[in-house]
Amino acid sequence: MTSRGPIAVLGLGLIGGSLARDLAARGDTVWGFDADRAAVRSARRSGVIARAIDHDLTALRDAQVVVLAVPVDVAPALLQRASTHVRDAALITDVGSTKRRIVQCAADLTLGASFVGSHPLAGDHRAGWRASRTGLFTGARVDLCRSPQTSDTAWRRARALWRAVGARPVEHDAARHDAELAFASHLPQLLSLGLAGVLAHRGIARKRLGTGGRDMTRLAASSEKMWGAIFDENAEPVLDALDACLAALGALRGAVQHHDRETLRTAFTTAHAWTDDETRNPDAHQTRGGRAP
Amino acid sequence: MTSRGPIAVLGLGLIGGSLARDLAARGDTVWGFDADRAAVRSARRSGVIARAIDHDLTALRDAQVVVLAVPVDVAPALLQRASTHVRDAALITDVGSTKRRIVQCAADLTLGASFVGSHPLAGDHRAGWRASRTGLFTGARVDLCRSPQTSDTAWRRARALWRAVGARPVEHDAARHDAELAFASHLPQLLSLGLAGVLAHRGIARKRLGTGGRDMTRLAASSEKMWGAIFDENAEPVLDALDACLAALGALRGAVQHHDRETLRTAFTTAHAWTDDETRNPDAHQTRGGRAP
Repeated sequence: MTSRGPIAVLGLGLIGGSLARDLAARGDTVWGFDADRAAVRSARRSGVIARAIDHDLTALRDAQVVVLAVPVDVAPALLQRASTHVRDAALITDVGSTKRRIVQCAADLTLGASFVGSHPLAGDHRAGWRASRTGLFTGARVDLCRSPQTSDTAWRRARALWRAVGARPVEHDAARHDAELAFASHLPQLLSLGLAGVLAHRGIARKRLGTGGRDMTRLAASSEKMWGAIFDENAEPVLDALDACLAALGALRGAVQHHDRETLRTAFTTAHAWTDDETRNPDAHQTRGGRAP
Repeated sequence: MTSRGPIAVLGLGLIGGSLARDLAARGDTVWGFDADRAAVRSARRSGVIARAIDHDLTALRDAQVVVLAVPVDVAPALLQRASTHVRDAALITDVGSTKRRIVQCAADLTLGASFVGSHPLAGDHRAGWRASRTGLFTGARVDLCRSPQTSDTAWRRARALWRAVGARPVEHDAARHDAELAFASHLPQLLSLGLAGVLAHRGIARKRLGTGGRDMTRLAASSEKMWGAIFDENAEPVLDALDACLAALGALRGAVQHHDRETLRTAFTTAHAWTDDETRNPDAHQTRGGRAP
C-alpha cells in the first residue's frame, strides 16, 4: 500500500502472518490479532506487528485497512464483532477460499462499500504463524470479488494491497469463484485426503512413495479446521466437482478392467493438451477465469 | 559398479538415460540401445555411451551387465530377442514398475540365474533422453526382486549397480511389490489423470490452480506408453487399489453432503498421523515393505 494508517490483520496464520510480514517489511504499520496468544507474542517480538489488538477489537477504530485471515466459518462472526469498530476503514477484506458468504455477510452488516473479498492462491499444506514467511504472495493470483456496494476507493485499495506484496489481483464474480474453486482447489484436497487414508489403511508408509505419490499426498497434511469449514460452506459445488471426478475415475476403472488402451490414450491426450496449454499460453487463466481489474 | 566389462543399457529414456549418465560419469564403459536413433546419437555425442548397440543386439555378447529400460510391455519381447546373446552376462536386470511378469519371463528363458528385477522409485512425469539427468537416483529406493534361480553373483552385482549411482536397494517379493505399487504409485497416477481430465473438461486452466492443485496434476503429464503398459499388466492390483480409493472418496462425499465434520476430522486425523509418521520415523518403510538385502 502507499502507506497511510495502520493495517489490522486478524488471524496470524500462514496467510495472515505472511501478509503481515510482507507489509511490515515494506514499512507499513501492522497491527495484529490472533486467538493464539503465543502467535501474537511471537509476531510482536519479531517486530512484524507494532501492536497487539485486544479481544474487544476496539483498536480497529483507528485502522485504515482490516484483513480477516481466519477460517471461513469464523470470518462472518468475527466481521460481525468488528462491525461497529470498522466504519471508518477504507478497506475491509478477507483471504478465504470461499467468497459468496463473506461478501453477502459484509453487505448484511452494511459494510458493503468498504468490503472486497480476496482469495490469494498462495496457501499450502502448512498452517499457523510458524509456517508464515515473507514472499509467499510473489506472483500469486489473488481473486478479488466485489459487491454492488463496493466503493471505488475500497476497490483501488484492495488492488494496491495485494500488488504491494507482489501478488496479481484478478477480478472475479463470487459465485463463479466458489464454483470454480470447488474444482480447482477443493476437489484436489479431497482426492489427496482420500488417497492418504487408503495408503494409511493399507500400511504403506509415505516414504515408500516416489516423487509423484509424494506430490499427491502433500495436501492431506492440511488443516482440518480450515478445510472442514470450506467443505461445509461450499458443499454443493464441491459435490458437483467430486461427482464429476468419480465419473471420470469410473471411466478409467473400466478402461483398466477391459484393457482398453484406446480410452487410456484419449485420457492421456486430453491431460497432455491441458498441461501443455499452460506452457504455450501462461496467461490463459486470466482471460478464462476473470478479467484483470 | 566396481568396474569390469561394459554395461549395456537398452532404452535411453528418463531412467535408462539417467543411469547411463551416472555410470559413465564414474568411469564405467556404457553401451546404449534405443529405438529412437536421435537419442542414441545424442547419447554418443555427449560421451555418455561409448558404443551404439545395433538392432540385432549381438553386441550384448560382450556385455557384463544388461539393463532393460523400456516400457513393461516391451521388456519381455526385448529380453527374448536378447536371450541368445546374454548367456555370459553376470547380471541382467530391468527398471520396470511391475516385477512379476519380467521375473517369470527371465525364468522361462532360462536366464533366471543372472536376472534380478529392479524398480528404482525415481521416475517423474517427464520422459525420454532429453529428460534424463545425472543424480536422478541419489537416495532413491530401488526394489530388487529375485527369483529362486537368481545367483549370488547376480544379486551382489545388482546391489552394487544401484549403490554405485547413489540409490538404496531393498529386497522385495515380486508379487507383493506389484500389489503394493498399485497403491503407492499406480493409483496416484490414475487420480492425477482423472483430475486433469475433469479440469480440462471444465475449462479450468492449470495456471489457475494453487500449488496444491499443481502438485495433484503433475503426474497427468506422464507418458501414456509407459503407463498404459503398467495398467494393462497390473490390472487386478490396480483395480483393488482404485476400488479402495473410490470407497474412501464415497465416504468423504457423504461427509460433505451431510456436513458431517466428525467424519472429516477423523479422515484428517488419520492422514496427519500417516504424514507425521514419516517425519518421526524416516526409515519406517524399510521394515514394512521389505528388508535390506
